[in-house]
Amino acid sequence: MADKLEIPGKLTFDALVATHERIAAYVHRTPVLTCRSIDEWTGAELHFKCENFQKMGAFKMRGAVNALLQLPKEQLEKGVATHSSGNFAQALALSARMLGVKAYIVMPSNSPSVKKAAVRGYGGQIIECEPTLQAREDTLQQVVAKTGATFVHPFNDEQVILGQGTAAKELIEDAGPFDYLVAPVGGGGLCAGTALAARFLTKGTKTVGAEPLGADDAWQSMQAGRLIPQTNPQTIADGLRTSLGDKTFPVLYHLTESIVRVPETAIIEALRYILERMKIVVEPSSAVALAAIKEDPTRFRGKRVGVILSGGNLDLTLLGEWMRN
Amino acid sequence: MADKLEIPGKLTFDALVATHERIAAYVHRTPVLTCRSIDEWTGAELHFKCENFQKMGAFKMRGAVNALLQLPKEQLEKGVATHSSGNFAQALALSARMLGVKAYIVMPSNSPSVKKAAVRGYGGQIIECEPTLQAREDTLQQVVAKTGATFVHPFNDEQVILGQGTAAKELIEDAGPFDYLVAPVGGGGLCAGTALAARFLTKGTKTVGAEPLGADDAWQSMQAGRLIPQTNPQTIADGLRTSLGDKTFPVLYHLTESIVRVPETAIIEALRYILERMKIVVEPSSAVALAAIKEDPTRFRGKRVGVILSGGNLDLTLLGEWMRN
Repeated sequence: MADKLEIPGKLTFDALVATHERIAAYVHRTPVLTCRSIDEWTGAELHFKCENFQKMGAFKMRGAVNALLQLPKEQLEKGVATHSSGNFAQALALSARMLGVKAYIVMPSNSPSVKKAAVRGYGGQIIECEPTLQAREDTLQQVVAKTGATFVHPFNDEQVILGQGTAAKELIEDAGPFDYLVAPVGGGGLCAGTALAARFLTKGTKTVGAEPLGADDAWQSMQAGRLIPQTNPQTIADGLRTSLGDKTFPVLYHLTESIVRVPETAIIEALRYILERMKIVVEPSSAVALAAIKEDPTRFRGKRVGVILSGGNLDLTLLGEWMRN
Repeated sequence: MADKLEIPGKLTFDALVATHERIAAYVHRTPVLTCRSIDEWTGAELHFKCENFQKMGAFKMRGAVNALLQLPKEQLEKGVATHSSGNFAQALALSARMLGVKAYIVMPSNSPSVKKAAVRGYGGQIIECEPTLQAREDTLQQVVAKTGATFVHPFNDEQVILGQGTAAKELIEDAGPFDYLVAPVGGGGLCAGTALAARFLTKGTKTVGAEPLGADDAWQSMQAGRLIPQTNPQTIADGLRTSLGDKTFPVLYHLTESIVRVPETAIIEALRYILERMKIVVEPSSAVALAAIKEDPTRFRGKRVGVILSGGNLDLTLLGEWMRN
């Protein structure tokens, strides 16, 4: 199977550079922070790309706005649509508002009201559906058929992947060179973009994907050489419960050195370190990247490592529980 | 009574400038952040001085290191001592370690183990005592008698006040001019230093102290024109439960426009806004300053305001509870 896995042709150096220029006016160039006590804790020299400070609180903004900016004007004017209950819903809504077009967001009826409120706050129009994947896809099709809006996939899309890759591009420019880049893996858009940036912009910086042990479809897929969908994910890292797509998997397969899996206890410990030592708010998915470095010392000790902190949309009501356990 | 309240003579413009130069190599020049959604929420233009990113996580570092740098060498070499279970204990321990001298920290035996561990982590030597004020003072006297160490008061000390004032000095230099500066009030060291910086370095910037309604000794003292000690403080803002001192109160009395009191619900709401919107970790005492701005819109709406976020040493296990209520 593996030899059939081809990196999509649109994912080129020139495309990454053009993407970065295209989206620059719409996203923050987020800061890169360091933390001496976390360096001591891990034994590595870490440089954290703080996408928790990105607009709407996550890297997803980069890919969403890039995808919209690549649509022909007459198509864009009919609006855009996606199904998501996470950060991509907010990113698409905010990107659409910035470009003056409509965003239709299909969300399961049991989505937390705080997430619906966030999407509405960015001007997104919510269409509720039954909480099944089938209902989400059916409802999305109906919305697209009725409105003429363009479906934008949260990660399995070349323009989205290129957009997410700009975070690593900035990290390399601002604090490189690195021995390693580490990014969390959910659908694989961020990690694929990171691996592409490392390949295009560095001499030999290796990319490692970080994944919860309880949602390890990327690790399983890498071992098998084919896409193995995630079933029944068990992790607090809600951004990493999705399966890879056929556009992200080949990039990970060819361009990452490894996928490192981490148990939930390590995610919580890393989350605590980031909150307590760096004094910044990140979501559990971000902590997975730091946890991977702590869990794999033979790989990372003494190394210069760029870490993508993917987002900061943390549910504060859950935090105390995690920290007590 | 009020006419007897004299600002200590050492608290001069020249002393503040000299203090800033003296401590510059030992503390971080912390960043000033803004947040559009909090500006919209309050109706004011806010510039946040992020002392949560200060060494050991709070502004207390500034005053502690300044006090130590002002001691004669032979006195400093015998070490320093204080009684505190809060941020000043850590600040004194770290300052002493940076200067290569001993710090003796008297702590009540029922102090949380995490606080003891933090003091030990900075090299402080803990002397436990019964959890009463009398026992703390007696034990401290014994330590001083035995070791020859110099007692450094957490706030009622000119050198500490001047050190704390450097946070506002930097804020004014980096983001001024302001209509208002707002700082939380516990013992009054930070707020006094802030008011002095405003008086010395600006033309008419007003200083407002922010205080929990459940620990409003500063407000009570201002009304009475004399020190009224805090009894039975009831607030989650653990840094603000102490009483003013006879060196901080006169500064507040003469140089602040007002003390604004805020209920606990407003502190929690402001804390949530800072964590969720700014994506930074602050302790409840810091949120009191933002809460005061939100609670007093006639004073602050449309104004350019510098806000001191005093620290980031938040107990994460308590956070979920506060956020659920």
